[in-house]
Amino acid sequence: MNENKLYIIKVGGNIIDDATKLSTFLSSFSALKGKKILVHGGGKLATKLAADLSIPQQMVDGRRITDAETLKVVTMVYAGLINKQVVASLNALNAPSIGLSGADGNCITAHKRVHPSIDFGFVGDVDSVNTNLILSLLHMDLNIIIAPITQDKTGQLLNTNADTIAQEIAKAMAQHIPVTLVYSFEKKGVLQDVNDENSAIPMINRALFDQLKKDKAIFAGMIPKLDNAFAALQAGVEKVIIGDATELSALIEGKTGTAIC
Amino acid sequence: MNENKLYIIKVGGNIIDDATKLSTFLSSFSALKGKKILVHGGGKLATKLAADLSIPQQMVDGRRITDAETLKVVTMVYAGLINKQVVASLNALNAPSIGLSGADGNCITAHKRVHPSIDFGFVGDVDSVNTNLILSLLHMDLNIIIAPITQDKTGQLLNTNADTIAQEIAKAMAQHIPVTLVYSFEKKGVLQDVNDENSAIPMINRALFDQLKKDKAIFAGMIPKLDNAFAALQAGVEKVIIGDATELSALIEGKTGTAIC
Repeated sequence: MNENKLYIIKVGGNIIDDATKLSTFLSSFSALKGKKILVHGGGKLATKLAADLSIPQQMVDGRRITDAETLKVVTMVYAGLINKQVVASLNALNAPSIGLSGADGNCITAHKRVHPSIDFGFVGDVDSVNTNLILSLLHMDLNIIIAPITQDKTGQLLNTNADTIAQEIAKAMAQHIPVTLVYSFEKKGVLQDVNDENSAIPMINRALFDQLKKDKAIFAGMIPKLDNAFAALQAGVEKVIIGDATELSALIEGKTGTAIC
Repeated sequence: MNENKLYIIKVGGNIIDDATKLSTFLSSFSALKGKKILVHGGGKLATKLAADLSIPQQMVDGRRITDAETLKVVTMVYAGLINKQVVASLNALNAPSIGLSGADGNCITAHKRVHPSIDFGFVGDVDSVNTNLILSLLHMDLNIIIAPITQDKTGQLLNTNADTIAQEIAKAMAQHIPVTLVYSFEKKGVLQDVNDENSAIPMINRALFDQLKKDKAIFAGMIPKLDNAFAALQAGVEKVIIGDATELSALIEGKTGTAIC
Protein backbone atom coordinates (compact mmCIF):
# COMPACT_ATOMS: atom_id res chain seq x y z
CA MET A 1 0.00 0.00 0.00
CA ASN A 2 1.94 3.00 -1.20
CA GLU A 3 1.50 6.08 -3.32
CA ASN A 4 3.43 4.68 -6.29
CA LYS A 5 1.09 1.80 -6.85
CA LEU A 6 -2.18 1.66 -8.67
CA TYR A 7 -5.05 -0.44 -7.37
CA ILE A 8 -7.68 -1.34 -9.92
CA ILE A 9 -10.67 -2.76 -8.14
CA LYS A 10 -13.67 -4.33 -9.82
CA VAL A 11 -16.71 -4.55 -7.57
CA GLY A 12 -19.49 -6.97 -8.48
CA GLY A 13 -23.18 -6.32 -9.00
CA ASN A 14 -24.28 -8.19 -5.85
CA ILE A 15 -22.35 -5.69 -3.72
CA ILE A 16 -23.80 -2.71 -5.61
CA ASP A 17 -27.31 -4.10 -4.96
CA ASP A 18 -26.76 -4.39 -1.18
CA ALA A 19 -26.69 -0.98 0.55
CA THR A 20 -24.91 -2.27 3.68
CA LYS A 21 -22.22 -4.19 1.81
CA LEU A 22 -21.71 -1.31 -0.61
CA SER A 23 -21.26 1.10 2.25
CA THR A 24 -18.67 -1.20 3.92
CA PHE A 25 -16.85 -1.59 0.61
CA LEU A 26 -16.79 2.16 -0.12
CA SER A 27 -15.47 2.93 3.36
CA SER A 28 -12.54 0.56 2.94
CA PHE A 29 -11.97 1.72 -0.64
CA SER A 30 -11.79 5.32 0.59
CA ALA A 31 -9.32 4.33 3.34
CA LEU A 32 -6.97 2.46 0.99
CA LYS A 33 -3.74 4.41 0.39
CA GLY A 34 -2.42 4.75 -3.16
CA LYS A 35 -3.85 5.60 -6.54
CA LYS A 36 -7.17 3.89 -7.20
CA ILE A 37 -9.54 3.02 -10.00
CA LEU A 38 -12.90 1.42 -9.26
CA VAL A 39 -14.79 -0.43 -12.00
CA HIS A 40 -18.40 -1.26 -11.18
CA GLY A 41 -21.12 -3.31 -12.78
CA GLY A 42 -24.71 -3.10 -11.66
CA GLY A 43 -26.55 -5.91 -13.40
CA LYS A 44 -29.63 -6.32 -11.23
CA LEU A 45 -30.66 -2.66 -11.23
CA ALA A 46 -30.50 -2.64 -15.04
CA THR A 47 -32.56 -5.84 -15.19
CA LYS A 48 -35.14 -4.31 -12.86
CA LEU A 49 -35.40 -1.06 -14.83
CA ALA A 50 -35.76 -3.01 -18.08
CA ALA A 51 -38.56 -5.07 -16.49
CA ASP A 52 -40.30 -1.91 -15.20
CA LEU A 53 -40.15 -0.51 -18.73
CA SER A 54 -41.31 -3.84 -20.27
CA ILE A 55 -38.13 -4.17 -22.32
CA PRO A 56 -37.56 -7.92 -22.77
CA GLN A 57 -34.06 -9.07 -21.78
CA GLN A 58 -32.18 -11.93 -23.34
CA MET A 59 -29.02 -13.43 -21.84
CA VAL A 60 -26.60 -15.70 -23.72
CA ASP A 61 -23.81 -17.33 -21.68
CA GLY A 62 -24.36 -14.79 -18.92
CA ARG A 63 -23.96 -11.88 -21.35
CA ARG A 64 -26.80 -9.45 -21.96
CA ILE A 65 -27.99 -9.11 -25.54
CA THR A 66 -28.08 -5.33 -25.88
CA ASP A 67 -30.69 -3.95 -28.26
CA ALA A 68 -31.14 -0.18 -28.69
CA GLU A 69 -33.61 0.14 -25.80
CA THR A 70 -31.48 -2.00 -23.48
CA LEU A 71 -28.44 0.13 -24.31
CA LYS A 72 -30.36 3.19 -23.07
CA VAL A 73 -31.22 1.31 -19.87
CA VAL A 74 -27.64 0.26 -19.09
CA THR A 75 -26.30 3.71 -19.99
CA MET A 76 -28.78 5.29 -17.58
CA VAL A 77 -28.21 2.78 -14.76
CA TYR A 78 -24.44 2.25 -15.02
CA ALA A 79 -23.13 5.65 -16.19
CA GLY A 80 -25.92 7.65 -14.52
CA LEU A 81 -27.43 6.29 -11.33
CA ILE A 82 -24.81 3.90 -9.94
CA ASN A 83 -21.76 5.85 -11.06
CA LYS A 84 -22.95 9.16 -9.61
CA GLN A 85 -24.19 7.61 -6.35
CA VAL A 86 -20.81 5.93 -5.85
CA VAL A 87 -18.90 9.12 -6.71
CA ALA A 88 -21.00 11.26 -4.34
CA SER A 89 -20.60 8.70 -1.52
CA LEU A 90 -16.82 8.60 -1.95
CA ASN A 91 -16.60 12.40 -2.05
CA ALA A 92 -18.51 12.51 1.23
CA LEU A 93 -15.96 10.03 2.65
CA ASN A 94 -13.24 12.53 1.82
CA ALA A 95 -11.99 10.48 -1.12
CA PRO A 96 -12.41 12.88 -4.08
CA SER A 97 -13.58 10.87 -7.07
CA ILE A 98 -14.51 11.41 -10.68
CA GLY A 99 -16.89 9.11 -12.54
CA LEU A 100 -16.27 8.24 -16.17
CA SER A 101 -17.77 6.07 -18.83
CA GLY A 102 -15.48 4.82 -21.59
CA ALA A 103 -16.78 7.67 -23.75
CA ASP A 104 -15.53 10.41 -21.43
CA GLY A 105 -12.26 11.87 -22.67
CA ASN A 106 -12.13 8.92 -25.10
CA CYS A 107 -11.19 6.85 -22.07
CA ILE A 108 -11.99 3.42 -23.55
CA THR A 109 -12.53 2.84 -27.27
CA ALA A 110 -14.23 -0.36 -28.35
CA HIS A 111 -15.86 -1.95 -31.39
CA LYS A 112 -19.22 -3.68 -31.73
CA ARG A 113 -18.74 -7.39 -31.09
CA VAL A 114 -18.49 -9.56 -34.17
CA HIS A 115 -19.63 -13.13 -33.51
CA PRO A 116 -20.11 -15.90 -36.08
CA SER A 117 -23.57 -16.95 -34.85
CA ILE A 118 -24.90 -14.64 -32.12
CA ASP A 119 -25.84 -10.99 -32.57
CA PHE A 120 -25.01 -9.45 -29.21
CA GLY A 121 -26.35 -6.07 -30.34
CA PHE A 122 -24.65 -3.00 -28.89
CA VAL A 123 -21.97 -4.90 -26.99
CA GLY A 124 -18.41 -3.65 -27.23
CA ASP A 125 -15.03 -5.35 -27.13
CA VAL A 126 -12.22 -3.07 -25.99
CA ASP A 127 -9.65 -1.78 -28.49
CA SER A 128 -7.73 0.79 -26.47
CA VAL A 129 -7.43 2.57 -23.14
CA ASN A 130 -6.46 6.26 -22.91
CA THR A 131 -3.68 5.93 -20.31
CA ASN A 132 -2.71 9.62 -20.66
CA LEU A 133 -6.14 10.71 -19.49
CA ILE A 134 -6.10 8.23 -16.61
CA LEU A 135 -2.61 9.24 -15.50
CA SER A 136 -3.54 12.94 -15.60
CA LEU A 137 -6.65 12.39 -13.47
CA LEU A 138 -4.79 10.18 -10.96
CA HIS A 139 -2.13 12.88 -10.79
CA MET A 140 -4.90 15.29 -9.75
CA ASP A 141 -5.42 12.98 -6.73
CA LEU A 142 -8.78 11.81 -7.96
CA ASN A 143 -10.06 8.26 -7.70
CA ILE A 144 -11.51 7.22 -11.04
CA ILE A 145 -14.85 5.42 -10.98
CA ILE A 146 -15.54 3.61 -14.25
CA ALA A 147 -18.99 2.61 -15.55
CA PRO A 148 -18.88 -0.28 -18.05
CA ILE A 149 -20.10 1.69 -21.08
CA THR A 150 -17.66 2.30 -23.93
CA GLN A 151 -17.87 3.98 -27.35
CA ASP A 152 -16.69 3.24 -30.84
CA LYS A 153 -15.11 5.82 -33.14
CA THR A 154 -18.45 6.77 -34.72
CA GLY A 155 -19.96 7.92 -31.43
CA GLN A 156 -21.92 4.73 -30.79
CA LEU A 157 -22.13 3.82 -27.10
CA LEU A 158 -21.54 0.12 -26.32
CA ASN A 159 -22.29 -2.07 -23.32
CA THR A 160 -19.06 -3.73 -22.16
CA ASN A 161 -18.27 -6.37 -19.56
CA ALA A 162 -16.93 -4.75 -16.38
CA ASP A 163 -14.45 -7.58 -15.63
CA THR A 164 -12.95 -7.14 -19.07
CA ILE A 165 -12.74 -3.36 -18.65
CA ALA A 166 -10.88 -3.81 -15.35
CA GLN A 167 -8.47 -6.22 -17.01
CA GLU A 168 -7.88 -3.98 -20.06
CA ILE A 169 -7.25 -0.90 -17.92
CA ALA A 170 -4.89 -2.96 -15.71
CA LYS A 171 -2.91 -4.23 -18.70
CA ALA A 172 -2.60 -0.76 -20.24
CA MET A 173 -1.72 0.99 -16.96
CA ALA A 174 0.86 -1.70 -16.07
CA GLN A 175 3.08 -0.16 -18.76
CA HIS A 176 3.28 3.01 -16.61
CA ILE A 177 2.92 2.08 -12.93
CA PRO A 178 2.89 -1.14 -10.82
CA VAL A 179 -0.69 -2.41 -10.85
CA THR A 180 -2.61 -4.64 -8.44
CA LEU A 181 -5.90 -5.85 -9.91
CA VAL A 182 -8.63 -6.93 -7.48
CA TYR A 183 -11.82 -8.71 -8.50
CA SER A 184 -14.04 -8.18 -5.47
CA PHE A 185 -17.50 -9.63 -5.07
CA GLU A 186 -19.74 -11.45 -2.55
CA LYS A 187 -17.57 -14.62 -2.22
CA LYS A 188 -14.45 -15.17 -0.12
CA GLY A 189 -12.37 -16.01 -3.21
CA VAL A 190 -12.14 -18.90 -5.64
CA LEU A 191 -13.87 -21.62 -3.64
CA GLN A 192 -12.71 -25.24 -3.58
CA ASP A 193 -16.29 -26.19 -2.67
CA VAL A 194 -18.87 -23.76 -4.04
CA ASN A 195 -21.17 -24.56 -1.07
CA ASP A 196 -18.52 -23.83 1.54
CA GLU A 197 -17.80 -20.11 1.94
CA ASN A 198 -14.67 -20.97 3.92
CA SER A 199 -13.04 -23.07 1.22
CA ALA A 200 -11.26 -20.25 -0.63
CA ILE A 201 -8.07 -21.43 -2.31
CA PRO A 202 -5.31 -19.04 -1.08
CA MET A 203 -3.25 -19.19 -4.26
CA ILE A 204 -3.80 -20.40 -7.82
CA ASN A 205 -1.11 -20.70 -10.45
CA ARG A 206 -1.52 -21.75 -14.05
CA ALA A 207 -0.88 -25.47 -13.33
CA LEU A 208 -3.45 -25.58 -10.52
CA PHE A 209 -5.98 -23.70 -12.67
CA ASP A 210 -5.58 -26.24 -15.49
CA GLN A 211 -5.97 -29.07 -12.98
CA LEU A 212 -9.09 -27.50 -11.40
CA LYS A 213 -10.65 -27.05 -14.82
CA LYS A 214 -9.80 -30.64 -15.80
CA ASP A 215 -11.32 -31.97 -12.56
CA LYS A 216 -14.36 -29.68 -13.05
CA ALA A 217 -13.56 -28.60 -9.47
CA ILE A 218 -14.21 -24.95 -10.19
CA PHE A 219 -17.45 -23.00 -10.56
CA ALA A 220 -18.06 -22.33 -14.27
CA GLY A 221 -18.75 -18.64 -13.70
CA MET A 222 -15.27 -18.26 -12.22
CA ILE A 223 -13.43 -19.47 -15.32
CA PRO A 224 -13.65 -16.23 -17.37
CA LYS A 225 -12.51 -14.24 -14.28
CA LEU A 226 -9.46 -16.50 -13.95
CA ASP A 227 -8.75 -16.36 -17.69
CA ASN A 228 -8.86 -12.56 -17.34
CA ALA A 229 -6.55 -12.74 -14.33
CA PHE A 230 -3.88 -14.82 -16.08
CA ALA A 231 -4.06 -12.61 -19.19
CA ALA A 232 -3.51 -9.55 -16.97
CA LEU A 233 -0.47 -11.13 -15.26
CA GLN A 234 1.02 -12.10 -18.59
CA ALA A 235 0.65 -8.49 -19.73
CA GLY A 236 2.64 -7.13 -16.78
CA VAL A 237 0.11 -6.65 -13.99
CA GLU A 238 1.92 -7.31 -10.71
CA LYS A 239 -0.75 -9.04 -8.70
CA VAL A 240 -4.31 -10.26 -9.18
CA ILE A 241 -6.52 -10.95 -6.16
CA ILE A 242 -10.04 -12.37 -6.07
CA GLY A 243 -12.20 -12.12 -2.95
CA ASP A 244 -14.79 -10.54 -0.69
CA ALA A 245 -15.53 -6.87 -1.39
CA THR A 246 -16.38 -6.28 2.28
CA GLU A 247 -12.84 -7.33 3.30
CA LEU A 248 -10.90 -5.12 0.94
CA SER A 249 -7.94 -4.26 3.14
CA ALA A 250 -7.45 -7.88 4.28
CA LEU A 251 -7.63 -8.92 0.63
CA ILE A 252 -4.91 -6.49 -0.37
CA GLU A 253 -2.76 -7.49 2.60
CA GLY A 254 -3.05 -11.14 1.49
CA LYS A 255 -4.86 -12.21 4.67
CA THR A 256 -7.89 -13.52 2.80
CA GLY A 257 -9.05 -14.21 -0.76
CA THR A 258 -7.34 -15.97 -3.63
CA ALA A 259 -4.11 -14.66 -5.10
CA ILE A 260 -3.50 -15.49 -8.76
CA CYS A 261 0.14 -15.92 -9.74
CA MET B 1 -13.12 33.33 -30.98
CA ASN B 2 -9.72 32.61 -29.60
CA GLU B 3 -7.91 30.09 -27.41
CA ASN B 4 -7.78 32.37 -24.40
CA LYS B 5 -11.50 32.67 -24.06
CA LEU B 6 -13.96 30.36 -22.43
CA TYR B 7 -17.39 29.79 -23.94
CA ILE B 8 -20.00 28.44 -21.56
CA ILE B 9 -22.99 27.32 -23.55
CA LYS B 10 -26.27 26.19 -22.08
CA VAL B 11 -28.40 24.20 -24.51
CA GLY B 12 -32.11 23.83 -23.82
CA GLY B 13 -34.22 20.72 -23.52
CA ASN B 14 -36.16 21.30 -26.76
CA ILE B 15 -32.91 21.03 -28.72
CA ILE B 16 -31.85 17.88 -26.85
CA ASP B 17 -35.22 16.31 -27.74
CA ASP B 18 -34.85 17.00 -31.48
CA ALA B 19 -32.23 14.75 -33.12
CA THR B 20 -31.76 17.00 -36.19
CA LYS B 21 -31.41 20.22 -34.22
CA LEU B 22 -29.11 18.54 -31.69
CA SER B 23 -26.87 17.27 -34.46
CA THR B 24 -26.67 20.77 -36.02
CA PHE B 25 -25.89 22.27 -32.63
CA LEU B 26 -23.18 19.71 -31.80
CA SER B 27 -21.51 20.22 -35.18
CA SER B 28 -21.23 23.95 -34.64
CA PHE B 29 -20.20 23.47 -31.01
CA SER B 30 -17.39 21.15 -32.14
CA ALA B 31 -16.26 23.67 -34.77
CA LEU B 32 -16.13 26.61 -32.34
CA LYS B 33 -12.52 27.57 -31.51
CA GLY B 34 -11.56 28.17 -27.88
CA LYS B 35 -12.15 26.49 -24.55
CA LYS B 36 -15.70 25.26 -24.12
CA ILE B 37 -18.14 24.08 -21.49
CA LEU B 38 -21.56 22.78 -22.46
CA VAL B 39 -24.37 22.63 -19.89
CA HIS B 40 -27.40 20.63 -20.95
CA GLY B 41 -30.87 20.05 -19.57
CA GLY B 42 -33.10 17.34 -20.90
CA GLY B 43 -36.51 17.91 -19.38
CA LYS B 44 -38.83 16.01 -21.71
CA LEU B 45 -36.89 12.74 -21.66
CA ALA B 46 -36.98 12.75 -17.86
CA THR B 47 -40.70 13.48 -17.90
CA LYS B 48 -41.27 10.61 -20.35
CA LEU B 49 -39.20 8.13 -18.31
CA ALA B 50 -41.05 9.14 -15.13
CA ALA B 51 -44.38 8.58 -16.93
CA ASP B 52 -43.22 5.17 -18.25
CA LEU B 53 -42.32 4.23 -14.67
CA SER B 54 -45.60 5.65 -13.30
CA ILE B 55 -43.76 8.13 -11.07
CA PRO B 56 -46.11 11.13 -10.68
CA GLN B 57 -44.45 14.46 -11.48
CA GLN B 58 -45.29 17.76 -9.87
CA MET B 59 -44.13 21.12 -11.23
CA VAL B 60 -44.22 24.38 -9.25
CA ASP B 61 -43.35 27.59 -11.15
CA GLY B 62 -41.73 25.50 -13.90
CA ARG B 63 -39.48 23.72 -11.38
CA ARG B 64 -39.73 19.97 -10.89
CA ILE B 65 -40.51 18.78 -7.36
CA THR B 66 -37.88 16.09 -6.96
CA ASP B 67 -38.83 13.19 -4.70
CA ALA B 68 -36.44 10.25 -4.22
CA GLU B 69 -37.74 8.32 -7.24
CA THR B 70 -37.70 11.39 -9.47
CA LEU B 71 -34.11 12.09 -8.41
CA LYS B 72 -33.15 8.63 -9.69
CA VAL B 73 -34.92 9.38 -12.98
CA VAL B 74 -33.16 12.71 -13.57
CA THR B 75 -29.80 11.27 -12.52
CA MET B 76 -30.22 8.45 -15.04
CA VAL B 77 -31.47 10.66 -17.86
CA TYR B 78 -29.27 13.75 -17.39
CA ALA B 79 -25.98 12.30 -16.07
CA GLY B 80 -26.35 8.95 -17.85
CA LEU B 81 -28.19 8.88 -21.15
CA ILE B 82 -28.03 12.46 -22.44
CA ASN B 83 -24.58 13.29 -21.09
CA LYS B 84 -22.93 10.17 -22.54
CA GLN B 85 -24.71 10.43 -25.90
CA VAL B 86 -23.57 14.05 -26.24
CA VAL B 87 -20.00 13.19 -25.19
CA ALA B 88 -19.75 10.26 -27.63
CA SER B 89 -21.16 12.38 -30.48
CA LEU B 90 -18.65 15.18 -29.84
CA ASN B 91 -15.76 12.70 -29.63
CA ALA B 92 -16.82 11.33 -33.02
CA LEU B 93 -16.76 14.92 -34.34
CA ASN B 94 -13.12 15.15 -33.27
CA ALA B 95 -13.93 17.37 -30.30
CA PRO B 96 -12.65 15.34 -27.33
CA SER B 97 -15.08 15.82 -24.47
CA ILE B 98 -15.54 14.68 -20.90
CA GLY B 99 -18.95 14.49 -19.24
CA LEU B 100 -19.37 15.46 -15.61
CA SER B 101 -22.13 15.82 -13.09
CA GLY B 102 -21.61 18.25 -10.25
CA ALA B 103 -20.57 15.29 -8.10
CA ASP B 104 -17.59 14.36 -10.28
CA GLY B 105 -14.38 15.68 -8.81
CA ASN B 106 -16.54 17.77 -6.44
CA CYS B 107 -17.21 19.95 -9.46
CA ILE B 108 -20.33 21.69 -8.11
CA THR B 109 -21.33 21.62 -4.46
CA ALA B 110 -24.88 22.57 -3.54
CA HIS B 111 -27.34 22.42 -0.66
CA LYS B 112 -30.91 21.19 -0.56
CA ARG B 113 -33.21 24.12 -1.25
CA VAL B 114 -34.79 25.72 1.78
CA HIS B 115 -38.12 27.39 0.99
CA PRO B 116 -40.59 28.89 3.46
CA SER B 117 -43.66 27.13 2.01
CA ILE B 118 -42.76 24.66 -0.76
CA ASP B 119 -40.81 21.43 -0.26
CA PHE B 120 -38.92 21.07 -3.55
CA GLY B 121 -37.48 17.73 -2.42
CA PHE B 122 -34.00 16.87 -3.70
CA VAL B 123 -33.44 20.17 -5.47
CA GLY B 124 -30.08 21.86 -5.00
CA ASP B 125 -28.96 25.47 -4.93
CA VAL B 126 -25.31 25.96 -5.86
CA ASP B 127 -22.74 26.85 -3.17
CA SER B 128 -19.44 26.52 -5.01
CA VAL B 129 -17.77 25.58 -8.27
CA ASN B 130 -14.43 23.73 -8.37
CA THR B 131 -12.60 26.03 -10.78
CA ASN B 132 -9.28 24.18 -10.29
CA LEU B 133 -10.79 20.97 -11.64
CA ILE B 134 -12.40 22.78 -14.58
CA LEU B 135 -9.19 24.65 -15.45
CA SER B 136 -7.18 21.40 -15.31
CA LEU B 137 -9.58 19.59 -17.63
CA LEU B 138 -9.74 22.53 -20.08
CA HIS B 139 -5.95 22.59 -20.03
CA MET B 140 -6.05 18.94 -21.18
CA ASP B 141 -7.92 20.25 -24.27
CA LEU B 142 -11.15 18.60 -23.27
CA ASN B 143 -14.57 20.14 -23.69
CA ILE B 144 -16.53 19.73 -20.48
CA ILE B 145 -20.13 18.58 -20.78
CA ILE B 146 -22.11 19.23 -17.60
CA ALA B 147 -25.27 17.41 -16.53
CA PRO B 148 -27.44 19.43 -14.10
CA ILE B 149 -27.04 17.11 -11.11
CA THR B 150 -25.07 18.37 -8.10
CA GLN B 151 -24.20 16.98 -4.67
CA ASP B 152 -24.12 18.24 -1.13
CA LYS B 153 -21.32 17.56 1.34
CA THR B 154 -23.03 14.44 2.72
CA GLY B 155 -23.04 12.62 -0.61
CA GLN B 156 -26.65 13.44 -1.45
CA LEU B 157 -27.24 14.02 -5.17
CA LEU B 158 -29.45 17.01 -6.00
CA ASN B 159 -31.39 18.08 -9.09
CA THR B 160 -30.28 21.58 -10.09
CA ASN B 161 -31.51 24.03 -12.70
CA ALA B 162 -29.21 23.97 -15.76
CA ASP B 163 -29.51 27.72 -16.44
CA THR B 164 -28.35 28.41 -12.90
CA ILE B 165 -25.45 25.96 -13.22
CA ALA B 166 -24.29 27.69 -16.41
CA GLN B 167 -24.48 31.06 -14.66
CA GLU B 168 -22.63 29.86 -11.54
CA ILE B 169 -19.85 28.25 -13.57
CA ALA B 170 -19.58 31.42 -15.68
CA LYS B 171 -19.31 33.64 -12.60
CA ALA B 172 -16.68 31.43 -10.98
CA MET B 173 -14.61 30.95 -14.13
CA ALA B 174 -14.71 34.68 -14.95
CA GLN B 175 -12.24 35.16 -12.09
CA HIS B 176 -9.68 33.17 -14.15
CA ILE B 177 -10.39 33.66 -17.86
CA PRO B 178 -12.60 35.90 -20.05
CA VAL B 179 -16.01 34.20 -20.26
CA THR B 180 -18.80 34.43 -22.82
CA LEU B 181 -22.03 32.85 -21.58
CA VAL B 182 -24.54 31.68 -24.18
CA TYR B 183 -28.09 30.60 -23.39
CA SER B 184 -29.06 28.71 -26.53
CA PHE B 185 -32.48 27.22 -27.16
CA GLU B 186 -35.19 26.94 -29.84
CA LYS B 187 -35.95 30.67 -30.12
CA LYS B 188 -34.08 33.37 -32.02
CA GLY B 189 -33.44 35.35 -28.86
CA VAL B 190 -35.51 37.47 -26.48
CA LEU B 191 -38.55 38.17 -28.66
CA GLN B 192 -40.38 41.50 -28.70
CA ASP B 193 -43.48 39.59 -29.83
CA VAL B 194 -43.59 36.02 -28.56
CA ASN B 195 -45.55 34.97 -31.68
CA ASP B 196 -43.06 36.45 -34.12
CA GLU B 197 -39.85 34.44 -34.40
CA ASN B 198 -38.19 37.34 -36.21
CA SER B 199 -38.77 39.89 -33.45
CA ALA B 200 -35.60 39.16 -31.46
CA ILE B 201 -34.36 42.24 -29.62
CA PRO B 202 -30.67 42.63 -30.63
CA MET B 203 -29.52 44.13 -27.33
CA ILE B 204 -31.00 44.48 -23.85
CA ASN B 205 -29.51 46.55 -21.06
CA ARG B 206 -30.77 46.88 -17.51
CA ALA B 207 -32.95 49.93 -18.28
CA LEU B 208 -34.65 48.23 -21.23
CA PHE B 209 -35.16 45.04 -19.19
CA ASP B 210 -36.87 47.00 -16.42
CA GLN B 211 -39.05 48.76 -19.00
CA LEU B 212 -39.97 45.46 -20.73
CA LYS B 213 -40.90 43.92 -17.38
CA LYS B 214 -42.97 47.00 -16.43
CA ASP B 215 -44.78 46.91 -19.79
CA LYS B 216 -45.25 43.12 -19.43
CA ALA B 217 -43.74 43.06 -22.93
CA ILE B 218 -41.58 40.04 -22.17
CA PHE B 219 -42.42 36.35 -21.96
CA ALA B 220 -42.57 35.31 -18.28
CA GLY B 221 -40.30 32.26 -18.84
CA MET B 222 -37.57 34.58 -20.08
CA ILE B 223 -37.38 36.67 -16.91
CA PRO B 224 -35.27 34.21 -14.82
CA LYS B 225 -32.90 33.76 -17.79
CA LEU B 226 -32.41 37.52 -17.98
CA ASP B 227 -32.03 37.84 -14.22
CA ASN B 228 -29.33 35.15 -14.51
CA ALA B 229 -27.70 37.02 -17.36
CA PHE B 230 -27.48 40.33 -15.51
CA ALA B 231 -26.17 38.60 -12.38
CA ALA B 232 -23.45 36.96 -14.49
CA LEU B 233 -22.40 40.27 -16.05
CA GLN B 234 -22.27 41.92 -12.66
CA ALA B 235 -19.95 39.13 -11.46
CA GLY B 236 -17.45 39.70 -14.24
CA VAL B 237 -18.70 37.63 -17.19
CA GLU B 238 -17.74 39.51 -20.37
CA LYS B 239 -20.71 38.81 -22.55
CA VAL B 240 -24.08 37.07 -22.32
CA ILE B 241 -25.93 36.04 -25.48
CA ILE B 242 -29.38 34.46 -25.80
CA GLY B 243 -30.48 32.80 -29.02
CA ASP B 244 -31.02 29.92 -31.40
CA ALA B 245 -28.90 26.82 -30.68
CA THR B 246 -28.84 25.89 -34.36
CA GLU B 247 -27.11 29.19 -35.22
CA LEU B 248 -24.33 29.02 -32.67
CA SER B 249 -21.54 30.61 -34.68
CA ALA B 250 -23.75 33.48 -35.89
CA LEU B 251 -24.84 33.99 -32.28
CA ILE B 252 -21.27 34.25 -31.07
CA GLU B 253 -20.34 36.57 -33.92
CA GLY B 254 -23.22 38.84 -32.89
CA LYS B 255 -25.09 38.38 -36.20
CA THR B 256 -28.21 37.06 -34.53
CA GLY B 257 -29.70 36.57 -31.06
CA THR B 258 -29.98 38.96 -28.14
CA ALA B 259 -26.89 40.36 -26.45
CA ILE B 260 -27.28 41.30 -22.79
CA CYS B 261 -25.16 44.18 -21.60
